[in-house]
Amino acid sequence: MSAVMRLGYVQLRVTDLEEARNHYSNTLGMEVVHEEPGKLWLKCWDEWDHHSLVIEEGGVGLVKLGYKVDSPEALADFERRSQQFGATVGRFSEGENLKVGDGVRITLPSDHTLELYTDMEFAGTETGAINPEAWPRNIRGVGTHWIDHALISVDEPALVERFMSECLDFRSAERAVVSMEDPELLGSWMTCGESPHDLAFIKGPNNKLHHFAYHLEDWSSILKAGDIFSMDDVPIDIGPTRHGITRGTTIYFFDPAGNRNEVFAGLGYRAQKDFPTITWTSDQLAKGIFYHARELNEGFTTVFT
Amino acid sequence: MSAVMRLGYVQLRVTDLEEARNHYSNTLGMEVVHEEPGKLWLKCWDEWDHHSLVIEEGGVGLVKLGYKVDSPEALADFERRSQQFGATVGRFSEGENLKVGDGVRITLPSDHTLELYTDMEFAGTETGAINPEAWPRNIRGVGTHWIDHALISVDEPALVERFMSECLDFRSAERAVVSMEDPELLGSWMTCGESPHDLAFIKGPNNKLHHFAYHLEDWSSILKAGDIFSMDDVPIDIGPTRHGITRGTTIYFFDPAGNRNEVFAGLGYRAQKDFPTITWTSDQLAKGIFYHARELNEGFTTVFT
Amino acid sequence: MSAVMRLGYVQLRVTDLEEARNHYSNTLGMEVVHEEPGKLWLKCWDEWDHHSLVIEEGGVGLVKLGYKVDSPEALADFERRSQQFGATVGRFSEGENLKVGDGVRITLPSDHTLELYTDMEFAGTETGAINPEAWPRNIRGVGTHWIDHALISVDEPALVERFMSECLDFRSAERAVVSMEDPELLGSWMTCGESPHDLAFIKGPNNKLHHFAYHLEDWSSILKAGDIFSMDDVPIDIGPTRHGITRGTTIYFFDPAGNRNEVFAGLGYRAQKDFPTITWTSDQLAKGIFYHARELNEGFTTVFT
Amino acid sequence: MSAVMRLGYVQLRVTDLEEARNHYSNTLGMEVVHEEPGKLWLKCWDEWDHHSLVIEEGGVGLVKLGYKVDSPEALADFERRSQQFGATVGRFSEGENLKVGDGVRITLPSDHTLELYTDMEFAGTETGAINPEAWPRNIRGVGTHWIDHALISVDEPALVERFMSECLDFRSAERAVVSMEDPELLGSWMTCGESPHDLAFIKGPNNKLHHFAYHLEDWSSILKAGDIFSMDDVPIDIGPTRHGITRGTTIYFFDPAGNRNEVFAGLGYRAQKDFPTITWTSDQLAKGIFYHARELNEGFTTVFT
Repeated sequence: MSAVMRLGYVQLRVTDLEEARNHYSNTLGMEVVHEEPGKLWLKCWDEWDHHSLVIEEGGVGLVKLGYKVDSPEALADFERRSQQFGATVGRFSEGENLKVGDGVRITLPSDHTLELYTDMEFAGTETGAINPEAWPRNIRGVGTHWIDHALISVDEPALVERFMSECLDFRSAERAVVSMEDPELLGSWMTCGESPHDLAFIKGPNNKLHHFAYHLEDWSSILKAGDIFSMDDVPIDIGPTRHGITRGTTIYFFDPAGNRNEVFAGLGYRAQKDFPTITWTSDQLAKGIFYHARELNEGFTTVFT
Repeated sequence: MSAVMRLGYVQLRVTDLEEARNHYSNTLGMEVVHEEPGKLWLKCWDEWDHHSLVIEEGGVGLVKLGYKVDSPEALADFERRSQQFGATVGRFSEGENLKVGDGVRITLPSDHTLELYTDMEFAGTETGAINPEAWPRNIRGVGTHWIDHALISVDEPALVERFMSECLDFRSAERAVVSMEDPELLGSWMTCGESPHDLAFIKGPNNKLHHFAYHLEDWSSILKAGDIFSMDDVPIDIGPTRHGITRGTTIYFFDPAGNRNEVFAGLGYRAQKDFPTITWTSDQLAKGIFYHARELNEGFTTVFT
Repeated sequence: MSAVMRLGYVQLRVTDLEEARNHYSNTLGMEVVHEEPGKLWLKCWDEWDHHSLVIEEGGVGLVKLGYKVDSPEALADFERRSQQFGATVGRFSEGENLKVGDGVRITLPSDHTLELYTDMEFAGTETGAINPEAWPRNIRGVGTHWIDHALISVDEPALVERFMSECLDFRSAERAVVSMEDPELLGSWMTCGESPHDLAFIKGPNNKLHHFAYHLEDWSSILKAGDIFSMDDVPIDIGPTRHGITRGTTIYFFDPAGNRNEVFAGLGYRAQKDFPTITWTSDQLAKGIFYHARELNEGFTTVFT
Repeated sequence: MSAVMRLGYVQLRVTDLEEARNHYSNTLGMEVVHEEPGKLWLKCWDEWDHHSLVIEEGGVGLVKLGYKVDSPEALADFERRSQQFGATVGRFSEGENLKVGDGVRITLPSDHTLELYTDMEFAGTETGAINPEAWPRNIRGVGTHWIDHALISVDEPALVERFMSECLDFRSAERAVVSMEDPELLGSWMTCGESPHDLAFIKGPNNKLHHFAYHLEDWSSILKAGDIFSMDDVPIDIGPTRHGITRGTTIYFFDPAGNRNEVFAGLGYRAQKDFPTITWTSDQLAKGIFYHARELNEGFTTVFT
């Protein structure tokens, strides 16, 4: 597997910080762990690092993604390989990102900013590491467990897939192509561990976010989330439904600024190194994305932030 | 992570092959992929290798466990480290295990036989790798997805934990100790990837099996499994319930020969390299094991095969 | 409560009998209990009367609904009251409907044909009445439990509500009106027992069916149904989702002829005689109907059969 | 159906009022709607009458059960029939029970006190009757929906069944007998509406309570309840599991005084007037009660309060 462990943080722009606080904290149940004028840091109850979401007021859309790496040696290796690939690569220092150590900043071929780092201040999960309860007794709102993955849009999926594979040891668990005869890549769901996807991308404008996703326990948690979205006037994009891709169950919805979020449940499979990569052809891709509706809603391929 | 990918096969003895066939095939839904006099090979619908369970008639209990490794280099390295640890280590050849390539046979400090291998004939999952359905339309019985982990009993947990860690790069996601003051190890739930456990062990007689477990989708699948166990007269040991350890939901039950099986659901967490290991103290251990009952049934600590 | 016990049968037209057989039997899991050229009779596994669905080839749409009454005295009383109301009322004889006894045929103010009867040949449920299993071991497809209710469209909802209340002792569990100031009735969900609805109607063309619904166990059964619809190429209209009205969880889908079906789960409440009727106002009605999307899809108010 | 609508209130003794308040309010989520020294009145969020539980300090066990009747005429009829049966019957006046109108007090042949009444002050559900949410946004603890039924122990089940049937129009949905040859009644699950049971009884000491039960939405709510019981140190008697009888899913647990409660989910069937009564024979009765374990735990037949 890759020495990249996970999507460690998402940094977003929002139009109104207080609306965002309400959405991510009261509705989704994250905790605000730090704040400064115009900026919030939040974590989910089951995450052990200091934060997983950074929100800054002003506009809408993705600022950058942070992926945590398991050793400085691996970090240096990823840096070297990314440079050799021809990507723009730089170093950032401890403190540039609150509570985050030194790291490497990579501009993906799709212009997205990816930060790799090995250290973030340890906070511990809300249930703790000694005789823990199964979940926090006073869970809030949806009670999201952790930030799980992101889906971005890229102009050249094949190029980004090659980068992620050659430079960062990601593997494709599932791939969308035009047809079995025409292997042009339309999207790829890539993993750095056993999860079906830690970073996914589909063809679209560069440097844009389609959504980032929170893990929930199961299909019943998805229903509860949907109910709360209705109570809290959160716009739902689609769902509850199942994905064909990853087999996960899902709701897509929007934060008040218009950034798309997902709640996602289901351990469809363990994407080990010998996992036989799944191929979706464009004629079946809508079923792959929304397994029940079997057609894409208009927003899916047009709304990016 | 470890170059060990997963528990690839379990080899068991049963008293009656036809009863076992009925249990593992009709009740649990595995497919018999090969048979010879006195012996059956089976796989689950979502496994891609040739088989994951080998059953041989005669007696009861565990013969051996096979773990799949991702490269010959890693295999050789595990062999070398195991020898240095002082374990009994040997090589086995392609064909000694049906459809399995060359490998390394290790006798654990607990006398269990562990086989490491890199190749098993590829069979593909029942849903396939091109535009797959979410699950097989004509699923049978419980419809187990895959064999997920095993729990064995060992006389010296600390020694086995050290072996698995030093020689095979397993990490402990959760550990049971006497108390925060007395760190004597009572059990350990070790992972080679992101799953909470690929091999777990608790203090008990050497070379014995507590249970091996099948992955199911969620808590509702656990209910359906329990219902089918009742219809098919399968003895249930405990459950449906939740584990505190791993947070998974579960039923323990027995095959007709008396080997304990488990159906297990739930992605409690992703046990990445920086996962803060959870400690259970003996006064809370019953809650850790059976989160609702908070007491161990008699069988839990006495029935091994 | 009313002496009407339940929606006992639905009689439908379909364009192709074999496609309908496949849909209602293989996909939904009903059993074909009788057939004649151009006509099928089916029942669900948990229904104890001879059949609950009659399908006749030729066209599409609702032929009639049958409601079972608990005594001949009540039947005669309903007949008398319906006549006094001014409805067209007639008698039908045993044998006119296969396995159904004598009864009363009423033309509702909305031109729908409603048949009331007290006797249908007893068949027994598939699990039986002595030490029954919780569900049939070899359930097929979606495994629908029973036909639960129908939603029809009527030109004058207030008139139909008055008829059902005054003549048949139905009560409104939930009602949709223009606003708290303008009490014009847009729809009514009426019960003859404790269920939230045994017959519902919304404003629309007379003598048309919106859908009829099957009971399923819970939200997880709804997911399984949706998955099977995808595997079997059944067009889904909407769902899985929750209704605000009744709080039930649901998928709307179509049979091959275009008749809308529903799978429905959830005992939202017991609509006893003192149940405080719920009012939905038109500005919130979309949320009442599709609790998550909070908007009506185009089909909802345009597709009737 | 019967003019009895439902189990309207349960009156209990507890050893410690504050412990009971914590249990019924914080853990189960009922609201304390009135209190006086030594006494609490509570309701669930989805109940519309003033209260459904009365708790008085001093001892343990059932004081009485109140069943709500739909009209004064029916009340008078039940009174007359109960007298004719030979039961001890009296009248009580408005105000004797807080917020409850005049009524009839019956001593069952099993010495239990049953109060019938037609009026209790209306409170409304927590979600209200105008454009209601599916459930209260700020639900507390388990979030029980309503008190659903009670199971009492009686020395002569056949006599009590005859009383409930002849005097109060209850019907038996399920019955337990010694065997198909020996029809001695061991227990009966009786309904006054469509629910599988509004009052059930099994053979045991007179004037004792086995448990009373709260309705929850589904099997996932049962899991959540079990988790909270563990967090709140509530002793679980058995479960989560399924009943064969009623097919409902369940946990039995105890309040701090030792009164047994149940959380119960599932609309197994609608027990209409022509429902074919289910018979359980004593050799299969354990499976009927605990469908998975298929054996009774010791407490089931020995712990009554």
